[in-house]
Amino acid sequence: KRQGFPEVIFGEGKSADQIEQIIQSIQTEGSDILATRVARDKAAVIQGRFPELIYNETAELLYSRQKPRENENGSYIAIVSAGTSDMKVAEEAALTAEAFGSQVCRFYDVGVAGIHRLFNNIDGIRNASVSVVIAGMEGALASVVGGLVSHPVIAVPTSVGYGANFHGLSALLTMLNSCASGISVVNIDNGFGAAYNAVMIDRIARNANAPQ
Amino acid sequence: KRQGFPEVIFGEGKSADQIEQIIQSIQTEGSDILATRVARDKAAVIQGRFPELIYNETAELLYSRQKPRENENGSYIAIVSAGTSDMKVAEEAALTAEAFGSQVCRFYDVGVAGIHRLFNNIDGIRNASVSVVIAGMEGALASVVGGLVSHPVIAVPTSVGYGANFHGLSALLTMLNSCASGISVVNIDNGFGAAYNAVMIDRIARNANAPQ
Amino acid sequence: KRQGFPEVIFGEGKSADQIEQIIQSIQTEGSDILATRVARDKAAVIQGRFPELIYNETAELLYSRQKPRENENGSYIAIVSAGTSDMKVAEEAALTAEAFGSQVCRFYDVGVAGIHRLFNNIDGIRNASVSVVIAGMEGALASVVGGLVSHPVIAVPTSVGYGANFHGLSALLTMLNSCASGISVVNIDNGFGAAYNAVMIDRIARNANAPQ
Amino acid sequence: KRQGFPEVIFGEGKSADQIEQIIQSIQTEGSDILATRVARDKAAVIQGRFPELIYNETAELLYSRQKPRENENGSYIAIVSAGTSDMKVAEEAALTAEAFGSQVCRFYDVGVAGIHRLFNNIDGIRNASVSVVIAGMEGALASVVGGLVSHPVIAVPTSVGYGANFHGLSALLTMLNSCASGISVVNIDNGFGAAYNAVMIDRIARNANAPQ
Amino acid sequence: KRQGFPEVIFGEGKSADQIEQIIQSIQTEGSDILATRVARDKAAVIQGRFPELIYNETAELLYSRQKPRENENGSYIAIVSAGTSDMKVAEEAALTAEAFGSQVCRFYDVGVAGIHRLFNNIDGIRNASVSVVIAGMEGALASVVGGLVSHPVIAVPTSVGYGANFHGLSALLTMLNSCASGISVVNIDNGFGAAYNAVMIDRIARNANAPQ
Amino acid sequence: KRQGFPEVIFGEGKSADQIEQIIQSIQTEGSDILATRVARDKAAVIQGRFPELIYNETAELLYSRQKPRENENGSYIAIVSAGTSDMKVAEEAALTAEAFGSQVCRFYDVGVAGIHRLFNNIDGIRNASVSVVIAGMEGALASVVGGLVSHPVIAVPTSVGYGANFHGLSALLTMLNSCASGISVVNIDNGFGAAYNAVMIDRIARNANAPQ
Amino acid sequence: KRQGFPEVIFGEGKSADQIEQIIQSIQTEGSDILATRVARDKAAVIQGRFPELIYNETAELLYSRQKPRENENGSYIAIVSAGTSDMKVAEEAALTAEAFGSQVCRFYDVGVAGIHRLFNNIDGIRNASVSVVIAGMEGALASVVGGLVSHPVIAVPTSVGYGANFHGLSALLTMLNSCASGISVVNIDNGFGAAYNAVMIDRIARNANAPQ
Amino acid sequence: KRQGFPEVIFGEGKSADQIEQIIQSIQTEGSDILATRVARDKAAVIQGRFPELIYNETAELLYSRQKPRENENGSYIAIVSAGTSDMKVAEEAALTAEAFGSQVCRFYDVGVAGIHRLFNNIDGIRNASVSVVIAGMEGALASVVGGLVSHPVIAVPTSVGYGANFHGLSALLTMLNSCASGISVVNIDNGFGAAYNAVMIDRIARNANAPQ
Ligand SMILES: Nc1ncnc2c1ncn2[C@@H]1O[C@H](COP(=O)(O)O)[C@@H](O)[C@H]1O
Ligand SMILES: Nc1ncnc2c1ncn2[C@@H]1O[C@H](COP(=O)(O)O)[C@@H](O)[C@H]1O
Ligand SMILES: Nc1ncnc2c1ncn2[C@@H]1O[C@H](COP(=O)(O)O)[C@@H](O)[C@H]1O
Ligand SMILES: Nc1ncnc2c1ncn2[C@@H]1O[C@H](COP(=O)(O)O)[C@@H](O)[C@H]1O
Ligand SMILES: [Mg+2]
Ligand SMILES: [Mg+2]
Ligand SMILES: [Mg+2]
Ligand SMILES: [Mg+2]
Ligand SMILES: [Mg+2]
Ligand SMILES: [Mg+2]
Ligand SMILES: [Mg+2]
Ligand SMILES: [Mg+2]
Repeated sequence: KRQGFPEVIFGEGKSADQIEQIIQSIQTEGSDILATRVARDKAAVIQGRFPELIYNETAELLYSRQKPRENENGSYIAIVSAGTSDMKVAEEAALTAEAFGSQVCRFYDVGVAGIHRLFNNIDGIRNASVSVVIAGMEGALASVVGGLVSHPVIAVPTSVGYGANFHGLSALLTMLNSCASGISVVNIDNGFGAAYNAVMIDRIARNANAPQ
Repeated sequence: KRQGFPEVIFGEGKSADQIEQIIQSIQTEGSDILATRVARDKAAVIQGRFPELIYNETAELLYSRQKPRENENGSYIAIVSAGTSDMKVAEEAALTAEAFGSQVCRFYDVGVAGIHRLFNNIDGIRNASVSVVIAGMEGALASVVGGLVSHPVIAVPTSVGYGANFHGLSALLTMLNSCASGISVVNIDNGFGAAYNAVMIDRIARNANAPQ
Repeated sequence: KRQGFPEVIFGEGKSADQIEQIIQSIQTEGSDILATRVARDKAAVIQGRFPELIYNETAELLYSRQKPRENENGSYIAIVSAGTSDMKVAEEAALTAEAFGSQVCRFYDVGVAGIHRLFNNIDGIRNASVSVVIAGMEGALASVVGGLVSHPVIAVPTSVGYGANFHGLSALLTMLNSCASGISVVNIDNGFGAAYNAVMIDRIARNANAPQ
Repeated sequence: KRQGFPEVIFGEGKSADQIEQIIQSIQTEGSDILATRVARDKAAVIQGRFPELIYNETAELLYSRQKPRENENGSYIAIVSAGTSDMKVAEEAALTAEAFGSQVCRFYDVGVAGIHRLFNNIDGIRNASVSVVIAGMEGALASVVGGLVSHPVIAVPTSVGYGANFHGLSALLTMLNSCASGISVVNIDNGFGAAYNAVMIDRIARNANAPQ
Repeated sequence: KRQGFPEVIFGEGKSADQIEQIIQSIQTEGSDILATRVARDKAAVIQGRFPELIYNETAELLYSRQKPRENENGSYIAIVSAGTSDMKVAEEAALTAEAFGSQVCRFYDVGVAGIHRLFNNIDGIRNASVSVVIAGMEGALASVVGGLVSHPVIAVPTSVGYGANFHGLSALLTMLNSCASGISVVNIDNGFGAAYNAVMIDRIARNANAPQ
Repeated sequence: KRQGFPEVIFGEGKSADQIEQIIQSIQTEGSDILATRVARDKAAVIQGRFPELIYNETAELLYSRQKPRENENGSYIAIVSAGTSDMKVAEEAALTAEAFGSQVCRFYDVGVAGIHRLFNNIDGIRNASVSVVIAGMEGALASVVGGLVSHPVIAVPTSVGYGANFHGLSALLTMLNSCASGISVVNIDNGFGAAYNAVMIDRIARNANAPQ
Repeated sequence: KRQGFPEVIFGEGKSADQIEQIIQSIQTEGSDILATRVARDKAAVIQGRFPELIYNETAELLYSRQKPRENENGSYIAIVSAGTSDMKVAEEAALTAEAFGSQVCRFYDVGVAGIHRLFNNIDGIRNASVSVVIAGMEGALASVVGGLVSHPVIAVPTSVGYGANFHGLSALLTMLNSCASGISVVNIDNGFGAAYNAVMIDRIARNANAPQ
Repeated sequence: KRQGFPEVIFGEGKSADQIEQIIQSIQTEGSDILATRVARDKAAVIQGRFPELIYNETAELLYSRQKPRENENGSYIAIVSAGTSDMKVAEEAALTAEAFGSQVCRFYDVGVAGIHRLFNNIDGIRNASVSVVIAGMEGALASVVGGLVSHPVIAVPTSVGYGANFHGLSALLTMLNSCASGISVVNIDNGFGAAYNAVMIDRIARNANAPQ
């Protein structure tokens, strides 16, 4: 890992104790940390031992405080989400991108059922270096955004929905089959992974080095 | 069946000979006919015996010539399709609706990848009594149209696409999970069925009796 | 939204607090509300703050009291359900339709295993402007009703069943593949969506304006 | 195998040559034969060598001529099918049952879209010892028949249909989830297997010994 | 329903209160009852009001006490199960068959991993009028029994297993594709349905009238 | 690759020309070759240029002539198959094993529908160092063999079957969920891969070195 | 579309005639063209009318001759593929990227079964601005490359394989679930789409404007 | 079962009471025991009665204390796992192998995202008689190890992951489709089964008798 980037811990399925041990060994190396999918109860235990860590409950992220960073050339990542229920994944993406040093603009609740909200925000989205588009249910937002912008779109299907949604399969297939060009897809609910990809691209746009 | 409506034959998996026998018995009763999914070769054979029938190759429909019909109150069905490859299903829907006596307006090639084309046509779609929206690949068009109109939308997923499209499953799930209200769905590639539903609604709008 | 129609809130996955905020902002605009999928506990909290709202526990709906409405021409929606276990979805549909101003007749427990019950009720169903047919397990009721009526049928598969039912997939596929014409389908358990479609059609039958 | 019953050959995926060798060895043992799923071309070759065999092209069955058999007590199997396209499977079932010595009554084209046709035939079906119900698309016929008769129903889903039918999966799930009691299911398109089961039951009804 | 047979209630998804009401109305008609899938807690409540009902916890069945019944001709149903974990479904089948007046012999824990246990019991199975074969995991037992007996086999896949078992799908597909003749299949975990089918056949073997 | 073992070419999806080029370069290195899934037409072309290669049409294998090899300690691989239609995969496995220098015994057509045939051959199977068990349809043979032998069983599901077989999925799931211990599974129709695994084990049994 | 970039035609499911009409109208606007998935026969017909177009048979691409372009800063896209059978998709990607003005380096046949070949090429891959990784069967190559490079990886699952590959589903799921960060995925066999995404990123790396 | 090997109990879905009864009867026969999938609470109850049994909480195994055993020829099984979350399955495999008398070396946390860790350990893995490779998410580790070793690899997909992982399906398909030779696969999370297979092979390598 390059200096200045956090080490990432996948918190799901690990005990508070296991996570603490990993944090301990990372801090010994002097790195910042970013732990994803840390449930509130576990986070409280870990913060007891590492009170300097910040916890965001919506995103279930636990991370080292960021130093303020100047944005070299105004480049930023657009985080675009369809509905209120996609907030958890959207914030996982937004905070991850910030933890890796990118500037972020949030465009939430702009799903296609009321498409005028998207159009009211389209200039801000278009000016980003890359967009992360987050949608559940049928996931149509990714296709519409992809057709309106000319930068790369990283699409994140979410498991929001019910019935024939099959836990996110519907949005996943939608995004993989998009008729708009310039869209690539990550796993269902994988806000972290989308942000990681977006950061890589944004850093190229800033003439900076990619993480890792 | 009510007088004046065609009897419908599902041509797939029936031989030219079997279809001819059914036409024969229907004509004895004096009804018009509409045969769906009749491949070109079979149609040619059948037209040899029933030269008064019209065949549309794109839609693979074989049907009795329609009498000119006055449109009582200007009510019409919007047939909205995403791409050139959806034409077969779109025409199956359009011609079926006309065979059942409805007025039809076609809005083709207005998929969401170039959403301005849809917006250029949106007034014509909005003024219909009901829309049939036909799309393959990810099928996002149904959600966008559904969000823009306030009449019922019958969505038809098509099998156009490849890979993770799984022969239309992707568009089918998209349409069933649409975040826009007012959308109901028929089987993959079932242009006939969508038109039949639309005609029922359009006839209510015309204060006419529904078919069957 | 047109005046006189409720604003709809999808309650699933939202906290009582989030729902209260949305209600607050809707009421500021003067609209009625209809919140779907609100679990009993959350409903109790919300009613604490908005005591004028009515809660129906079976349907998990929370909504503004309706003004009595005259039925202009006797038009009504038939809500037809197969078994006792489909009641939740059936009531979600029935109460939604009423909240949007349609007259409703309920035909419950008329599944095909005892088909005489359906036949005893068939005249009442036939005279509706549109039917919503709700069935779980194998969902055959939609096909049988579709074959017996000549108005549009909106079919709702439910997740009632077990084993090879796969949480409603069985009834969903049944309804999409129906050999009867005039049937369109909404998502599994989506009583609200079916009612919304039915109201649109019923309003055309009443020469009224559709919602939204 | 008991004397008087044919030996069965599964013809699919076997060459004419392989089938001929098996027939040769069976005839050496003196048994009659019944070969299923023998395509027309292969059947012609085989009949060249065994001209005493009968071939039914609809059912793709090749079999030894039956001796006339007295029906001891009037017991018979009802073969009930939904549509014209199910004919192949229906005839595979009917001819198999006859080859195993059961009496058969055919009730074809009585699908639920026009349910009056079923009711016109219901007495004949009810008086059978056992029914084989064959249906594709959504397969609802099995549930309706199961609710109307009090003998065992063997249901055969067929691969007739398209789109969300998924090659018979839809009808298969329908039949497995039937809300009517007294239905069991065999593989998609397995007319032979259904008949074999029905013959076993019919033979019990005739106080005869089961085959095999 | 014919006299002497219990009325059946599907208990899953019904409250104790709803079940009590149905029992009340059935008893008014003088029938016995058989309620399936009644969890222990609900059963206790219901027994508080109807103390004459018997509850079997393994099978989750609640039913009226049976009158002793003479077995006319020694005919019985074999209930054959693969492993200890299939016990719940096996007992649901066995007790249902007894409640409908059939004699039952249980052959439990005879799965194919230790096939000698099956062979030690094969004569008892062969002499039954019909077998119900219950197996989870890969469900191979149905094929093996089907190859060894010459009466009808009703196969019940169970949801016992994990991983690629997919909640019983594995055993279900196994049983539908069995290379042995004479097997038909019911839904996953549907011990009741299998028994109902078996009783129908067993009653024919006893020259008695089938239920319903 | 170790000396004395053939280099393997996966022939599917390669043109005769491409395969010839690979053979050419392998022979330059002095190795023997084994090409799998080479259709008859392509094989004829290739043999025109490399007449020293042997082609087995059933298995669609093209390979270098084997030198006679002494079997050091009598160790052999049992190739066990369920039905005639599994022959292609069985021979792919058997010839592959021989090409890699193992002794092979074939036990064909011993499927569980007539389980006595398996028992007649069980001693020969038991004495092998390892078994490859090949079965389509429901694939139950692997479980039965696994329960009867105490050496490793490599199970190969085949795509033989129809309907709910889903191109081999049924047998694949059966084998993965087997209740017998000592079974591992390779891809559907992958006779080559199973043989490769078996050869590795057989070579250990012969105190020889494994290939590759 | 920006000047200097080709207009793209999706050739699958379009007739030669339809494609010619689209080319005609595009050329009128003065744009270059790139038609994907044009089968050889159709390409020959189209080249008859537009002899200036180049056809690549492996990739099934038909396109306008490129002007030589100077590479501003040495930036290039790595096209990495696992096996010979992935060539079609790899060339679709490589030629598409070149048609959009990017420099490309090909790293073919470096699948993980012989991982040393990948390591021999890893420096060339690492120095690219972005990688397109193409693999069928189990698709593991994407994870391994993703772990070794620190630029974005666009993964393309191919339909190469058989059996439990399910036409590319296996590789698709592998790539979506990759444990390496920095990977996003496009549809099965979508070499065009991956290249389009890669070109967008490469253009940022070259400080150029993205296409579209 | 041969003397000296434990009898195995599958603990899942059995009550503490049922497990105790089985242990009782096994101990009467003098065998050691190995119970898999015994949750902590049940284990505590059982240890209350059989205090001589050892419980491993990570692996959820309950087993008899092993006698120290001399390793005849240095042969051992490599247990190779991808990540921390696969630990449960890895330990189930490792402890099972030890309970059956094999020597085991653990290579944990060597997943392909950081492939250098695998290479640092590759000699130890290569020298084993057989490897068990355990991985969730995309399961690519099995292919990489398979390409690097020349002994048999038993691959265990785990259910670790989320979204398009579909509870282990992703890793399962990866392993079945591996492009590396010499890999066979067991059920998702089946550490026990993999170890059982490995022990059989390792015993051949030690010239010992296989279990069972
Ligand atoms: N393309 C189609 N897709 C679905 N259903 C159809 C189609 N064409 C006709 N049908 C239905 O099939 C019925 C006729 O079926 P048949 O009696 O088999 O010719 C008609 O009444 C229609 O309901
Ligand atoms: N159409 C069919 N579908 C399923 N099984 C069949 C069919 N025809 C024959 N069989 C079974 O296949 C067995 C013969 O298989 P075989 O030895 O491969 O010819 C017969 O004993 C039947 O049990
Ligand atoms: N029938 C087969 N099924 C699966 N893998 C195979 C088969 N035949 C060959 N292989 C594998 O494919 C590799 C050669 O692939 P290729 O380089 O594409 O010819 C061999 O090393 C084998 O591991
Ligand atoms: N091989 C391909 N796979 C997926 N999308 C493609 C492919 N080739 C072209 N496209 C897209 O299809 C659009 C053209 O579609 P059409 O108007 O139907 O020719 C282009 O703008 C591309 O976005
Ligand atoms: Mg774009
Ligand atoms: Mg709308
Ligand atoms: Mg109708
Ligand atoms: Mg009945
Ligand atoms: Mg039998
Ligand atoms: Mg064994
Ligand atoms: Mg990387
Ligand atoms: Mg290897």
